[in-house]
Amino acid sequence: MFDNIHEECGVFGIFENTPSNVSSTAYLGLYALQHRGQESCGIAVCDDGIFRQHKGLGLVGEVFTKESLEELGIGNMAVGHVRYSTTGCNNINNVQPIVVRHIKGNLALAHNGNLTNASELRSHFELNGAIFHSTSDTEDIVYSIVSERLQARSIENAVEMAMYNLKGAYSCCLMSPSKLIAFRDPNGFRPLCLGITKTGGYIISSESCAIDAVGASFIRDIQPGEILVISEEGLKSIKTHCKKQSSLCVFEYIYFARPDSVIEGISVHAARKKAGAILAKESPVDADVVIGVPDSGLDAALGYSFESKIPYGIGFIKNKYIGRSFIKPTQSERESAVKIKLNVIKETIEGKKVILIDDSIVRGTTSRRIVKLLKDNGAKEVHLRISAPAFKFPCFFGTDIDSKENLIACKYDTVEEIKDFIGADSLAYLSIDGAHQIANDLDLRLCDGCFSGKYPIETPKNEEKNIFEQKINR
Amino acid sequence: MFDNIHEECGVFGIFENTPSNVSSTAYLGLYALQHRGQESCGIAVCDDGIFRQHKGLGLVGEVFTKESLEELGIGNMAVGHVRYSTTGCNNINNVQPIVVRHIKGNLALAHNGNLTNASELRSHFELNGAIFHSTSDTEDIVYSIVSERLQARSIENAVEMAMYNLKGAYSCCLMSPSKLIAFRDPNGFRPLCLGITKTGGYIISSESCAIDAVGASFIRDIQPGEILVISEEGLKSIKTHCKKQSSLCVFEYIYFARPDSVIEGISVHAARKKAGAILAKESPVDADVVIGVPDSGLDAALGYSFESKIPYGIGFIKNKYIGRSFIKPTQSERESAVKIKLNVIKETIEGKKVILIDDSIVRGTTSRRIVKLLKDNGAKEVHLRISAPAFKFPCFFGTDIDSKENLIACKYDTVEEIKDFIGADSLAYLSIDGAHQIANDLDLRLCDGCFSGKYPIETPKNEEKNIFEQKINR
Amino acid sequence: MFDNIHEECGVFGIFENTPSNVSSTAYLGLYALQHRGQESCGIAVCDDGIFRQHKGLGLVGEVFTKESLEELGIGNMAVGHVRYSTTGCNNINNVQPIVVRHIKGNLALAHNGNLTNASELRSHFELNGAIFHSTSDTEDIVYSIVSERLQARSIENAVEMAMYNLKGAYSCCLMSPSKLIAFRDPNGFRPLCLGITKTGGYIISSESCAIDAVGASFIRDIQPGEILVISEEGLKSIKTHCKKQSSLCVFEYIYFARPDSVIEGISVHAARKKAGAILAKESPVDADVVIGVPDSGLDAALGYSFESKIPYGIGFIKNKYIGRSFIKPTQSERESAVKIKLNVIKETIEGKKVILIDDSIVRGTTSRRIVKLLKDNGAKEVHLRISAPAFKFPCFFGTDIDSKENLIACKYDTVEEIKDFIGADSLAYLSIDGAHQIANDLDLRLCDGCFSGKYPIETPKNEEKNIFEQKINR
Amino acid sequence: MFDNIHEECGVFGIFENTPSNVSSTAYLGLYALQHRGQESCGIAVCDDGIFRQHKGLGLVGEVFTKESLEELGIGNMAVGHVRYSTTGCNNINNVQPIVVRHIKGNLALAHNGNLTNASELRSHFELNGAIFHSTSDTEDIVYSIVSERLQARSIENAVEMAMYNLKGAYSCCLMSPSKLIAFRDPNGFRPLCLGITKTGGYIISSESCAIDAVGASFIRDIQPGEILVISEEGLKSIKTHCKKQSSLCVFEYIYFARPDSVIEGISVHAARKKAGAILAKESPVDADVVIGVPDSGLDAALGYSFESKIPYGIGFIKNKYIGRSFIKPTQSERESAVKIKLNVIKETIEGKKVILIDDSIVRGTTSRRIVKLLKDNGAKEVHLRISAPAFKFPCFFGTDIDSKENLIACKYDTVEEIKDFIGADSLAYLSIDGAHQIANDLDLRLCDGCFSGKYPIETPKNEEKNIFEQKINR
Repeated sequence: MFDNIHEECGVFGIFENTPSNVSSTAYLGLYALQHRGQESCGIAVCDDGIFRQHKGLGLVGEVFTKESLEELGIGNMAVGHVRYSTTGCNNINNVQPIVVRHIKGNLALAHNGNLTNASELRSHFELNGAIFHSTSDTEDIVYSIVSERLQARSIENAVEMAMYNLKGAYSCCLMSPSKLIAFRDPNGFRPLCLGITKTGGYIISSESCAIDAVGASFIRDIQPGEILVISEEGLKSIKTHCKKQSSLCVFEYIYFARPDSVIEGISVHAARKKAGAILAKESPVDADVVIGVPDSGLDAALGYSFESKIPYGIGFIKNKYIGRSFIKPTQSERESAVKIKLNVIKETIEGKKVILIDDSIVRGTTSRRIVKLLKDNGAKEVHLRISAPAFKFPCFFGTDIDSKENLIACKYDTVEEIKDFIGADSLAYLSIDGAHQIANDLDLRLCDGCFSGKYPIETPKNEEKNIFEQKINR
Repeated sequence: MFDNIHEECGVFGIFENTPSNVSSTAYLGLYALQHRGQESCGIAVCDDGIFRQHKGLGLVGEVFTKESLEELGIGNMAVGHVRYSTTGCNNINNVQPIVVRHIKGNLALAHNGNLTNASELRSHFELNGAIFHSTSDTEDIVYSIVSERLQARSIENAVEMAMYNLKGAYSCCLMSPSKLIAFRDPNGFRPLCLGITKTGGYIISSESCAIDAVGASFIRDIQPGEILVISEEGLKSIKTHCKKQSSLCVFEYIYFARPDSVIEGISVHAARKKAGAILAKESPVDADVVIGVPDSGLDAALGYSFESKIPYGIGFIKNKYIGRSFIKPTQSERESAVKIKLNVIKETIEGKKVILIDDSIVRGTTSRRIVKLLKDNGAKEVHLRISAPAFKFPCFFGTDIDSKENLIACKYDTVEEIKDFIGADSLAYLSIDGAHQIANDLDLRLCDGCFSGKYPIETPKNEEKNIFEQKINR
Repeated sequence: MFDNIHEECGVFGIFENTPSNVSSTAYLGLYALQHRGQESCGIAVCDDGIFRQHKGLGLVGEVFTKESLEELGIGNMAVGHVRYSTTGCNNINNVQPIVVRHIKGNLALAHNGNLTNASELRSHFELNGAIFHSTSDTEDIVYSIVSERLQARSIENAVEMAMYNLKGAYSCCLMSPSKLIAFRDPNGFRPLCLGITKTGGYIISSESCAIDAVGASFIRDIQPGEILVISEEGLKSIKTHCKKQSSLCVFEYIYFARPDSVIEGISVHAARKKAGAILAKESPVDADVVIGVPDSGLDAALGYSFESKIPYGIGFIKNKYIGRSFIKPTQSERESAVKIKLNVIKETIEGKKVILIDDSIVRGTTSRRIVKLLKDNGAKEVHLRISAPAFKFPCFFGTDIDSKENLIACKYDTVEEIKDFIGADSLAYLSIDGAHQIANDLDLRLCDGCFSGKYPIETPKNEEKNIFEQKINR
Repeated sequence: MFDNIHEECGVFGIFENTPSNVSSTAYLGLYALQHRGQESCGIAVCDDGIFRQHKGLGLVGEVFTKESLEELGIGNMAVGHVRYSTTGCNNINNVQPIVVRHIKGNLALAHNGNLTNASELRSHFELNGAIFHSTSDTEDIVYSIVSERLQARSIENAVEMAMYNLKGAYSCCLMSPSKLIAFRDPNGFRPLCLGITKTGGYIISSESCAIDAVGASFIRDIQPGEILVISEEGLKSIKTHCKKQSSLCVFEYIYFARPDSVIEGISVHAARKKAGAILAKESPVDADVVIGVPDSGLDAALGYSFESKIPYGIGFIKNKYIGRSFIKPTQSERESAVKIKLNVIKETIEGKKVILIDDSIVRGTTSRRIVKLLKDNGAKEVHLRISAPAFKFPCFFGTDIDSKENLIACKYDTVEEIKDFIGADSLAYLSIDGAHQIANDLDLRLCDGCFSGKYPIETPKNEEKNIFEQKINR
């Protein structure tokens, strides 16, 4: 019903020194990362060198049952993945982790990100007789590592060699029969971090919230370019590919990550509150109450309220029972049924000048509907403030933004026109500069390519057109 | 995993002047009332005098499919119900609405509340050869009406006569082949209200949020004791049983109802904010931040913050994907897995004196876990404030409070002891007087029996013991 | 895909002297009676006076799961039922056994048959304020017994009194908190028999095949009009309603019952073989091979072969995997897809004169398709022989024959015309006299109403038209 | 409940000249081949070069829904597969058809059989950096073809080259973006045949019964060693690998194939009747009736009866409702519950000397139970006759016979001992010579390795031990 930007993927890994219920831990970890991908998920377990896997289309709670978890059983390592397909169509062969057998044994790989040289890699391997079961670029990473493994003295050495050929964004967790290996592209587009369990085992996770969720403790982020090897001998770090300048996706802070996660030392909740506060400074307005669109706009709304001294209010109730099984009303009933998902608390906004905070506008239709809802319930004025800059450019590093045809910021030339479409009394976006201030304290740069069109590394040639066409054709 | 007070039931009815998609509207209405009962649900449709029904155990989204809604089809009336069983075991025969055929035709009934003379009524009818398919007191109401109908000149007249024999709490919606009838016990224990659709049809609903959800407009509450008849001739009100003093359940404001509902002219959200504010006056404490337990403690937390001028914070993230299909970790894993459902935003509370607001304490184990979570994450002090008085007595009017053995306020003599059990630095409940101030502006009294042990009407003799035993035996 | 006569119902009961897994035994019993009703099923268990039930729409294997059987649990009695709805639409309220509570406690009833005075009974009870949850005539039987129970000194006495008012066909199994009671209408339209378990408990079943299936031993048939009471004191028989002349449905032998069942001392398999033999005598034809339509025509085909000395052949393979989940090909594909369900063994029939045996023709379309299949595969001649007389009249005693509009024997005046429609080289039915010869050795009469239009008892007035209309309207 | 020999796999392909509902045809075809594999199934469709697939664990009726068939949609080619895993554990990655992308585009492969040099092939490809997603030898075939395709001028030429390296049994159907290719190993261990649809399209199928089922007409068998290419230009046959002597599995006639199939010009039903007749000649016995164990023993029983002139009888009723959802009785109940699956028709065997025909004995426990069942029901004597020789050796060509430890013919030295274990009055197997007489009229040899231990081609070295161990470890 509502338009949005699709999150991309979440990876999770666990290494324990003795056989234990790693499949159950991975299951809990994936539940905590579910917001990063809702189309499919999977877990592979290593039990004394034997790999077992269970994967499927759907949410973690749909794919895994008591039976399938019991079949996965105990082991000393597991790798899990939640996915929203950014490349490859949504079929079972694309579900991760990818589990394969090669000359040196089994290997499982979970990947978050997007390669920018996937088609070159694919052609190269196909010319050597390779067959591809999936349309996902993750299989390219697997082939790259496996082909290096023929010469390399160890799996981590194969990863190290393969990384010379991989371009783009990749935060990965790889499981071999005896090692769990985390590795992150040199730009560190996507987050990846390390935790320790109560029994001294290690956790690899896209976000720290999953480390909390399984009762483990956060240690540190994996560095951009780092290869972290976990084995019976403990931790070993390979930093050949680490370089000074990284470029973390700014949208992880503003939109993707869970507010209780901490990335590169900055709390996501704090980053969003700060975005709200910067927005209040950049685009103040006289009003009676500040409300956020649940759940993504709440943190920024609180920041805006603190900075502006305008009271924070609870403006909406979201129906928490509406899930996939909800049967959408027919077109004719839809107009009247808007409020089934999101209802206004009239008490909060009636007769008032309202500042409405959201984290993004994609197509604009949802924002328009929400503004109308507020006005219909008696809001005197509605001032929409977006805690991110406007999307105007495609992302090549793991995010599935809508096609240019659909992006309202591409369709209209001015913010004024967008405001009119949405029906708000005023509209302002966070500035790109403002977005960068979130990470003022970090010594790494942020990628803002989707806002600025300036990308930190080379992007695929002649690909933009195709990517957009692909979206349209769906 | 978490202990709580079970909500009881929600009723929904729709009358349209021409055949239309009333089953779909009822479906949306029940989605909005789902918080009032999650064990079972059902819808009965009247299509030109022919009744079709679909009922089942589970949530609205589980019981109803595209197919079952299509089979219900169009009609000019529908009655729906969501249920948590307060009497009668949880089997399919107890699922409402109850649909029966009697001498004058079909009849469907949806009921929220509890009769206090159910066993007397049952004996009376059984002595006349009656058979009972359910163990629910709703079937007693049906027999009462049907037996009066033999003499009465109309179905509403039968309801009127039957009400002389019904004792206790009942907010009902009845569907005959040509009329939709809402009736409420003279004490008005449970809410019931009226709305109007865009096409001039009428909605009956336990709460106004469902009227909003289906795109209709709120008109007014059904009065305590009122019988409201909706037919082709429009609305007709029978007020024989209306009396001055009603006694609405105070817990509807504090706990049961949805914040976006308005009952007797008072916004539930506003009532909760007010409860928080009164609590701040009654039990102030010096602190750095006020946070609420999501979702039920958020409104009162905001009220406490406003009154005390202590900043409001977002303290927790609730995992919104965890539903019925979640496979609970084993006992040994459970301790570490607390945070899978509710994680702390460390940024908000670390190193701070925290005021934690919740709407109730039942067994105390959940509160203890949450306080520990905050302390483990660095909270300097945790001051627990409950926006309701302490539960100490059973409810006979439609609420399923836990047994005395389990209620922490019955197990311990003093608030100090409860505080120690929970591990908070201080603890305070809203006073009973404070609870009544919520409805200062209302000219009707509130029932506070579960806090005070003083009930507005006679309660079943020798029944208390049984009720509590029943809970234990479950 | 194929037209047929719907079987009606199967009842099963078990009484053990000590608590045991009666629900599992009932489950097995219903599996053996599944051919008597595939629309819904249910089991009620009595565990020391407490009744638990599980019922649902679908096959036994669909309705019952490991979990639901475990919830039913152990007990000393159980009653089960499989159903095809002959009266009452197919909704959950009509699923049997009906379990109710009345003045003297719980009662469960499973019924096979049809009352002929159901509407009179219903009016009578409604005039006393009765409510009906189902549209099934079984609820009339329950009301009749319960109303007699107010005066009667025991439940069996109530059944005895009630039977004075019940007209039509009823083979029932009733469970009270301490007794299991089987009773059968004085005409004994439907079968009902008694068995003994290895532990000395008793089984009541529509057919003896279910007694075999649960590892018990057949004792005897319940007599027409008999009330058999099973309790801790053992067996007690009440024969007030037993009279000389019974009228068992001849179609039980020819079509409904399972070949391994024995009814009134005659093996169903033997009866069908005999029908085939009589048919061979009545309507001989020169041919090379006798084949039966699986599975129902095989026994009669063997009988025809023995009598005629023409070799028996296996003419068809039935795809045993095709069940409810089979997705029917679209109309355009259907013609070519006939053979997916039933394929010809060409070897058996190619170039031969074939005698094809089936047990009935309803609409004739299936027979036509099968004859065409044989001819397309090279059969030189196809002589269709039906091991039952032609259907021409409705059944009022528990069988759901198609409407007169659809019955081919009503649409055409002569057998010759039917033969032409079907495309066979010759066609003959078993004569009505021939059908009666099946039971030559029995001292009870058989009801042949559906063939002859002559019914052993009075049928409902003005009902025929309605019954047929009802079918059309479906 | 019953022990048996697992069938192996079934392949199905369709080529139409214009886009049509090929997925629905493949679905019907797989239903007809379901007896060849019940663990998993899949269909891949080619729609103008685009491949869509749906696969899953379970029966055809479980894996495919209306939705999944609609998603497969129309196309001009499809390949389907049903599978029982003879190699590779039973996980989703092993489900066929295998669909991959290689340098020249898409390719789907369905395979029935077993390679004998799979591990050599696998090592070879892994040394070139290959990754294997499945543990099935079918992926080895794919790699072999794809690696030849780099040099070959066409896909059929690649198949031709690859066949020089493939050893063992393979009857395959391959789909490229424009061609459907059937190929069969030079020994022709497994059947494969060609049919033509009403619209002039072509069908490839493991058995002719599936050609019938979809309304197409049988043309001919694919020759051992033949590569048959179906494209827009029609049929093209490559016979490089065709040689004089083939070795079809004799067990296809005796056990695997459906009786209505015709393989190499011999009707399977006729072959089984002939086996029964030969058995009657080899091992006659004086008796009153010949009965077959349903369904597999019926054809041979009829043959035995014809040859011996002893009357054929219907001895058993099989409960056709018992499927996967059947909940097995507990151990203690099992003994009494034997008859739920198979019940005796007492009428047929009571007081008689019975010849019981079955097609095989694996562990012997089932046969023992059936013999006991007959004796318990009054059979005077039971003479067991098996319409196949005794299993004593493993199959390397696509059949999953039980481990030596479990095979009764390996456990006991003499037929006399087996007879005693089973409790029959006499026992005889068909002789190996007798088995060969089935195909007297064929000019091809039959493989009887599982009976004689003599294999037509080299078998894997040191593999026997492993294969048997694998079974034990399961």
